[in-house]
Amino acid sequence: MRWHDDFLELLDQRLLPADEVWLPHTTASEVATSIRNMVVRGAPAIGISAAYGVALSALQTTDNGWKQMIEADMQVLAESRPTAVNLFWALNRMREVLATCDTRHQAQRRLAEAAIGIHGDDLAANLAMAGHALTVMDDRAPFSVLTHCNTGALATGGYGTALGVIRRLHEEKMLKRVYADETRPWLQGSRLTAWELAREGIPVTLNADGAAAAILSRGEVKWVIVGADRITANGDVANKIGTYSLAVLARHHKVRFMVVAPASTVDMSLESGQEIPIEQRDGLEICEIKGIQIAPVGVDVFNPVFDVTPASLIDAIVTERGVIHEPDISGMRTLFNERKP
Amino acid sequence: MRWHDDFLELLDQRLLPADEVWLPHTTASEVATSIRNMVVRGAPAIGISAAYGVALSALQTTDNGWKQMIEADMQVLAESRPTAVNLFWALNRMREVLATCDTRHQAQRRLAEAAIGIHGDDLAANLAMAGHALTVMDDRAPFSVLTHCNTGALATGGYGTALGVIRRLHEEKMLKRVYADETRPWLQGSRLTAWELAREGIPVTLNADGAAAAILSRGEVKWVIVGADRITANGDVANKIGTYSLAVLARHHKVRFMVVAPASTVDMSLESGQEIPIEQRDGLEICEIKGIQIAPVGVDVFNPVFDVTPASLIDAIVTERGVIHEPDISGMRTLFNERKP
Repeated sequence: MRWHDDFLELLDQRLLPADEVWLPHTTASEVATSIRNMVVRGAPAIGISAAYGVALSALQTTDNGWKQMIEADMQVLAESRPTAVNLFWALNRMREVLATCDTRHQAQRRLAEAAIGIHGDDLAANLAMAGHALTVMDDRAPFSVLTHCNTGALATGGYGTALGVIRRLHEEKMLKRVYADETRPWLQGSRLTAWELAREGIPVTLNADGAAAAILSRGEVKWVIVGADRITANGDVANKIGTYSLAVLARHHKVRFMVVAPASTVDMSLESGQEIPIEQRDGLEICEIKGIQIAPVGVDVFNPVFDVTPASLIDAIVTERGVIHEPDISGMRTLFNERKP
Repeated sequence: MRWHDDFLELLDQRLLPADEVWLPHTTASEVATSIRNMVVRGAPAIGISAAYGVALSALQTTDNGWKQMIEADMQVLAESRPTAVNLFWALNRMREVLATCDTRHQAQRRLAEAAIGIHGDDLAANLAMAGHALTVMDDRAPFSVLTHCNTGALATGGYGTALGVIRRLHEEKMLKRVYADETRPWLQGSRLTAWELAREGIPVTLNADGAAAAILSRGEVKWVIVGADRITANGDVANKIGTYSLAVLARHHKVRFMVVAPASTVDMSLESGQEIPIEQRDGLEICEIKGIQIAPVGVDVFNPVFDVTPASLIDAIVTERGVIHEPDISGMRTLFNERKP
């Protein structure tokens, strides 16, 4: 994403890898619509975009009732996607800044600065996570990894969570190859991850989600590395549908399983993954691809966006604050002792 | 498929569910091309089509060298797909019939009769399998099942293997709901299984392959039921990519796993699944859908058509000869003591 002081540009991820189109946004509701329609996706990128949306909101206000207008826009942004907790975290941070503002112009300046700050912090956090993750990987010879969905520059402020770790492995010459699940239904793996990695010359092999088990059975992959949309107090992880499947498969094949996500993804107010609201999206995402019918009209569809991986299947959760090995409530509390909204 | 004495009609499964187009075939090489291009797929249907292909070959012969012409066509048919053993089984049966023929006209009649016989036997075998499978299912209340790929009327002579069992469960009012994996990359689940089941009013819910684990974790599904492309002497099963993944997931969730396939799928000449040749198909099947680009051009792709599920993850193999519980080499030998080519 690109911030231009009075508008926000988002790369329309729905059109990748065929077309690179940057869409300008000048209002919070335009940003909310782009989050809902998945122009932008990835939990961290959603949070940063929403923060910029609040900054845009301040620019649109009039002297009369400016604070209420911004608060109303925050509500619209909060309702754009239900599962990604970074969204609510970013909006809360913006709300705290708003509370310090006495004038409209002050709000315009401070909210823009706050959004830029959230963006910058995300980048720094990604780099810190990559550093922490490497301390866990004790394999000597270069190894392969398998990842799901897209957790790279497109999903974050610019480097990546799980894909940031993979980038770093490549820089350190520890990486043999990345297997990328295509990640149905949105194909973030083929459309985004393969695109990002191929651009940077990182060896990537694309596979159907159903082929991951066959790949893991061959012994070349040492780690499955994924992102997270929400992490609860006991270390359970909500992430893109298919993640839980990989966690079960990794355990079966004695492949280690790592979750990489910023601290803003952690929600200590929820005891376990059972409490996470799981967004269900339109069945058309399964029944059509780019407008082409691939299933009978009107068929019933089960299309949750996320699933929940229990902490017991996770070897390490990596955030910018450090690593939690074999996560559980006590491990989570060592790094996250505050309660969040 | 429809046999019309001098031509064979195959429903072009590539165009379903949008269009129902029946393609006429008058030569063996046309049939081989349709097998290779997946106009027709499903191990039993491939075998039956190949048998009809041999019958068509006999019709095309001239008095001079008719036997060699048929043998050459058999070779072309044998090379159309490498993994489905039913293909070789059907061709061997046709070869045995050919050996009994002294004249071209005798061959024309006997090979057509033999192909019709293979077709009819397949239907009868499907019905027998469904009966055997029910004896294994001791659940009282109606339950849900999950299936992969398409193993129904489209994949067989007209009833189905795994989907035949599911049809029968529905007839017996034992079935609550079928979850159908969409089955990337060819989408046999969404394009064919959902289409077949919806047509017959059998309750079906379509899901992305990556969502199967989340479905199995909910406890509603009691059996995963799949077909097979080849079964080895120790009970290992080659089937559509993603099957092995489901077997691991089923075991993790204590959901039972059933393989349903005709005896012609069994290949006692192979000791284990390690010996099965696994067909790799073009990466374009992952990178494009109906000609629309969904991955970066030229990206490396891992696209095996099949994976191998070890016998240890299978609760029951059902063929028309009966049920093998917890299959292993001795269980397999009780029903299949002959060695096959």
